[in-house]
Amino acid sequence: MNQSKKFWIGFDLGGTKMLSAAYDSEMKQLGREKKRTRASEGADAIVERIIDAISKTIDKSERGQGDLLGIGIGVPGPIDLETGTVIEAPNLGWKNVRLQKILEDKFDTRVVLCNDVDAGIYGEYVAGAAKGAYSAVGIFPGTGVGGGCVLNGQILQGKRRTAMEVGHIPFYSGGPLDGAGNEGTLECVASRLAISAGAAQAVFRGTAPYLKKEAGSDLSEIRSGTLANSIKNGDKSVERLVRHSAEYIGKAMVTLIHILSPEVIVLGGGLVEAIPDLFVNESRAYANEHVLSSYRDTFDVAAAELGDDSTIIGAAAWIMKVCEKAN
Amino acid sequence: MNQSKKFWIGFDLGGTKMLSAAYDSEMKQLGREKKRTRASEGADAIVERIIDAISKTIDKSERGQGDLLGIGIGVPGPIDLETGTVIEAPNLGWKNVRLQKILEDKFDTRVVLCNDVDAGIYGEYVAGAAKGAYSAVGIFPGTGVGGGCVLNGQILQGKRRTAMEVGHIPFYSGGPLDGAGNEGTLECVASRLAISAGAAQAVFRGTAPYLKKEAGSDLSEIRSGTLANSIKNGDKSVERLVRHSAEYIGKAMVTLIHILSPEVIVLGGGLVEAIPDLFVNESRAYANEHVLSSYRDTFDVAAAELGDDSTIIGAAAWIMKVCEKAN
Repeated sequence: MNQSKKFWIGFDLGGTKMLSAAYDSEMKQLGREKKRTRASEGADAIVERIIDAISKTIDKSERGQGDLLGIGIGVPGPIDLETGTVIEAPNLGWKNVRLQKILEDKFDTRVVLCNDVDAGIYGEYVAGAAKGAYSAVGIFPGTGVGGGCVLNGQILQGKRRTAMEVGHIPFYSGGPLDGAGNEGTLECVASRLAISAGAAQAVFRGTAPYLKKEAGSDLSEIRSGTLANSIKNGDKSVERLVRHSAEYIGKAMVTLIHILSPEVIVLGGGLVEAIPDLFVNESRAYANEHVLSSYRDTFDVAAAELGDDSTIIGAAAWIMKVCEKAN
Repeated sequence: MNQSKKFWIGFDLGGTKMLSAAYDSEMKQLGREKKRTRASEGADAIVERIIDAISKTIDKSERGQGDLLGIGIGVPGPIDLETGTVIEAPNLGWKNVRLQKILEDKFDTRVVLCNDVDAGIYGEYVAGAAKGAYSAVGIFPGTGVGGGCVLNGQILQGKRRTAMEVGHIPFYSGGPLDGAGNEGTLECVASRLAISAGAAQAVFRGTAPYLKKEAGSDLSEIRSGTLANSIKNGDKSVERLVRHSAEYIGKAMVTLIHILSPEVIVLGGGLVEAIPDLFVNESRAYANEHVLSSYRDTFDVAAAELGDDSTIIGAAAWIMKVCEKAN
């Protein structure tokens, strides 16, 4: 095989959209494809769309399918690593989908599934905010709060399961429940969804006049950019909500620093991108104040740099690494 | 050098006693030495006693100092891995002791420091309750609550700091403070010291008649075996205390399972040895009830098997591994 023709595909399977891109061995992007996920159409239809997106990416790469050495896929949920099964992905409506086998059979190439934020932080480690770090932790608040960790060049995973479900770390008793039905987790207070729900209440109560004008009290209208604009335009109640959430991310950092002692903590996702300084500064200050003194200032906190591309870059780099280890 | 003459020393530096043993490449013990630490005599005196214990261990091994390839030392506190410095060891009264350099100069051999519970869980991974596991987490309640993790044959550490300070994970607001002055940590409720303090209060209140007879309300008289006897002899208030602590260890497990997805969780230390079933069963039940469903029954919980020797075995095996990687 011609060395220079080899390529890999990185894939980001999200609840709203799917993103696919082909990369050569130098991580140069050869082509990309984007589709809506249309989660409501069910697992079979989504799998068809994934296959179609990958096929189009291969076409756009202008290389043959025989040169495709592997596909890495970031998935929003825990994975059974022994069987390559997506155990549960609430945003897709999936339970127990054996995605790895389906795609391996279809494209006759190696496929690895990883958690989407694991792929995202691996992308930031390869080419973004955590480039060259010995260890990096990612915290990405979205519908839930995703987490990931790279340690000495490896994605931190268990033998049977992906790890770093930071959104489900229990912190306190009582309060509203998270998406998995548990109380007092990081997701209950620091997800974009929880913040939006708080902001909608502020609109209803009349304490967020700008947000009321721009979005009203409908959760589905309150997006990351909307929250950023609301703060910029003086909605103090919304700013307090976001600060409170950033403080809880700081609290999660304390736990993660005491357990993993990471060199860099990367905050990512649309909400952090829209309000990066508040999230980075507030959470860093909280963490530095509350960690054991021997861990103070042993870590950096940074906003993600690769935006929407972090997961496709990380998933492609990870399948390259997996292929390399296998040879 | 004669291959068969090579040996390594594993060392456990505790607040009360120090333990040292020499091992050959098959992990056969060649000789051991035990001393009281006498923490109150100060850092210099303790270092002298460490040097003396190592020298005696070399003598007992009946091998020459030239065959000593390395010394691994488990230390009760966080370590600066870049300089080989014990940053803080409250039970020794130490701050910033450059133990690695001192011993390397003295014995002209390679020295690594590691956290004592990191060494302990590594010992259990090499020869005890976690033998052959892909990943193992250790939780050892003592004066504080120590933690450690082995992942794919490596001790989990940061670049600059040891990790797995599970005793300092924050769980709740309010309540009595831990040894580092923080509220609501695992150490506040699940250390042997915290349990003993609760038991002493029960004695004072008159709700622990057996314990009152055996130990009175003096904390320094309430040891692990005393607590076990008190429960066996019907002190319900003490049993409730221990169950409550075991439940919090279960809560810490939920956090650690969501972050690390370990294959085995090993509970160790004198208190768990004295009351193993209660700790193992109660914490496992709590964890299985509270983890995300996709993690349920993905982990085992077991009591440590190596007792006092886990740290010397682990420290010796770890220095052997470090030497092996360097060659």
